[in-house]
Amino acid sequence: MSTIHIDPAALAAATEAASAQARAQTLLGSLSPMNVAGRLDTLRGTLEAAGCDALVVTKLENIRWLTGFTGSAAKGQRDALVASLEGVSRIGLEADVVTWAQQRRWQSEWFPDAELIATEMLIDTLRITKDAGEVDRIAAACAVADAALANVRHRLDEQPTESDFGLELDLMMRRIGAEGNSFETIVAAGPNGAMPHHRPGSREIIAGDLVVIDFGSIVDGYCSDMTRTIMVGEPTETQQRMYDVVLASQQAGVEAVRAGVTAAEVDAVCRDIIVEAGWGDAFMHSTGHGVGLEIHEEPRVAAGVDATIGTGAVVTVEPGVYLPGHGGVRIEDTVVVTPDGCRPLTLAPKTMTVE
Amino acid sequence: MSTIHIDPAALAAATEAASAQARAQTLLGSLSPMNVAGRLDTLRGTLEAAGCDALVVTKLENIRWLTGFTGSAAKGQRDALVASLEGVSRIGLEADVVTWAQQRRWQSEWFPDAELIATEMLIDTLRITKDAGEVDRIAAACAVADAALANVRHRLDEQPTESDFGLELDLMMRRIGAEGNSFETIVAAGPNGAMPHHRPGSREIIAGDLVVIDFGSIVDGYCSDMTRTIMVGEPTETQQRMYDVVLASQQAGVEAVRAGVTAAEVDAVCRDIIVEAGWGDAFMHSTGHGVGLEIHEEPRVAAGVDATIGTGAVVTVEPGVYLPGHGGVRIEDTVVVTPDGCRPLTLAPKTMTVE
Repeated sequence: MSTIHIDPAALAAATEAASAQARAQTLLGSLSPMNVAGRLDTLRGTLEAAGCDALVVTKLENIRWLTGFTGSAAKGQRDALVASLEGVSRIGLEADVVTWAQQRRWQSEWFPDAELIATEMLIDTLRITKDAGEVDRIAAACAVADAALANVRHRLDEQPTESDFGLELDLMMRRIGAEGNSFETIVAAGPNGAMPHHRPGSREIIAGDLVVIDFGSIVDGYCSDMTRTIMVGEPTETQQRMYDVVLASQQAGVEAVRAGVTAAEVDAVCRDIIVEAGWGDAFMHSTGHGVGLEIHEEPRVAAGVDATIGTGAVVTVEPGVYLPGHGGVRIEDTVVVTPDGCRPLTLAPKTMTVE
Repeated sequence: MSTIHIDPAALAAATEAASAQARAQTLLGSLSPMNVAGRLDTLRGTLEAAGCDALVVTKLENIRWLTGFTGSAAKGQRDALVASLEGVSRIGLEADVVTWAQQRRWQSEWFPDAELIATEMLIDTLRITKDAGEVDRIAAACAVADAALANVRHRLDEQPTESDFGLELDLMMRRIGAEGNSFETIVAAGPNGAMPHHRPGSREIIAGDLVVIDFGSIVDGYCSDMTRTIMVGEPTETQQRMYDVVLASQQAGVEAVRAGVTAAEVDAVCRDIIVEAGWGDAFMHSTGHGVGLEIHEEPRVAAGVDATIGTGAVVTVEPGVYLPGHGGVRIEDTVVVTPDGCRPLTLAPKTMTVE
């Protein structure tokens, strides 16, 4: 009688991939509606303090958030816009999006009798607090990314190039249900891992490499963002310590996120652990950022940001250590802030090796 | 004795794909150097007429063109910039890129004693004329796209979804040697083809569909842009006529491109043929645009653009007809302008069906 032997590690990986994919499908199939209706009124309430009688919204993500409608820049709407703002004396523009050339043209040709007011981040600030429908979309985008990695991570043992591994990850996210990538996938192996924003190249991933994989998907316009670092082959003592320190830093950071904490406090929690390990200089970027219709949006989670983080904000926690000669380790989750803590939307395991 | 029968159409397709791929590899392997050295001096020669003593270059493609260096926006360079411009009275900004908020901050905080001058398109205008090295890169990007389509077009007969077909095309471009897509690939089948900028979706491509495929690759920073329309199954009389009219229009447009012609004249040549066929309203976009470090750059090839096109410009010629109920046809080549005509860089065949 013949027996069938199934490698328990392979079976566990396949089971994890199937379960992650089922979870992504469930989330994709049960997106609750977004509360678009009240947003315009909320915005109206901020205009007086900003010194405007009206606001011209130009930024596409802001138009989408306010109206639910997507689309590219509306062209040829000049006449309608000028007519609708006739007699308005203080017209706000989104100064952080409108170019200087546009502002000059609008002032001289479109609205010669009005005062143009430079506003900044009015809508972006409102967008920080996500409603349940928005959180559902980001959670689904996170689940798609989780499932894609679970499906392809075993390939790291087969010496793919960074570029090929990145493509497989992208393709898998699309197959599972992503609209696209929320940014260009980073796969940085071995020495390339020491550069936090390395683009995937033709380097083959080989034993001895720490592989930094930073990627995300888009679901109904909403982004996800995650990083996992995976060791191929046996880690050196330094690589193991890098991983342990970054993991401890990242977990402490996630535990520190709750409504009312300042962004600077979360950054400090992560940074202190890395500084104590002697690698303060090797964590040269900020700890995190908001995620939503844009991959990088408010709030920044960084030293010096004294604003508190509120319930319903969605942020990343992503400390890292980058050492020439050893490579890089970064671990990143996207989390949603709750009154007494946070709920991680990224659920991919943080095991250091492929199995 | 057994005989082996090889389908002559399949053989021809395989031969074409192999030859297109060999051509792409040859071009990728023989990129001549670009003449970066003289560009700064050329730019300096334009500043006096623009009313500036100095120009702060912000747009990434312009920095790359001027210096040969890529990279993301330089941050934290404020002190160096302010120091280097000490005592300069008229500082030009790229007003079509710098936001109004940046301009306000620079004026009040960085350069309170200088006059900021709004310049537009200074470098973009210089970039219109490509040197031999730039043409080589665009030609290689075009060849990669040609080869990718030759490799995957037979799949249209297998009822892929628009999305899957687009992904295969993207993957094939990367495998052949593209750095990336020059824009998000358009695959618009059947009724979706009546929308010029449809995004690929879950619609299966079936017999009776005209399939508009608009895509491009990037090689060493330079873009390609092409469209082919392929009929799956037998065309109706209207579909056949749409294809014939657009092909005639596109070929006439390519023949009209030469140094000294105005952009409006090229547009008129294409448009007249479509208007004569009774479909003037169904060609609702402009005829073409420049291609280089950006997928859309100067010059625009459109009605009302009276500037002449010069030797070394690289432009697209892409008329189309879009009819609800029948679908869309667009055919697009990227061409480089020569003194007595133009040289198409897109060489993919314009056969209407898959074989």
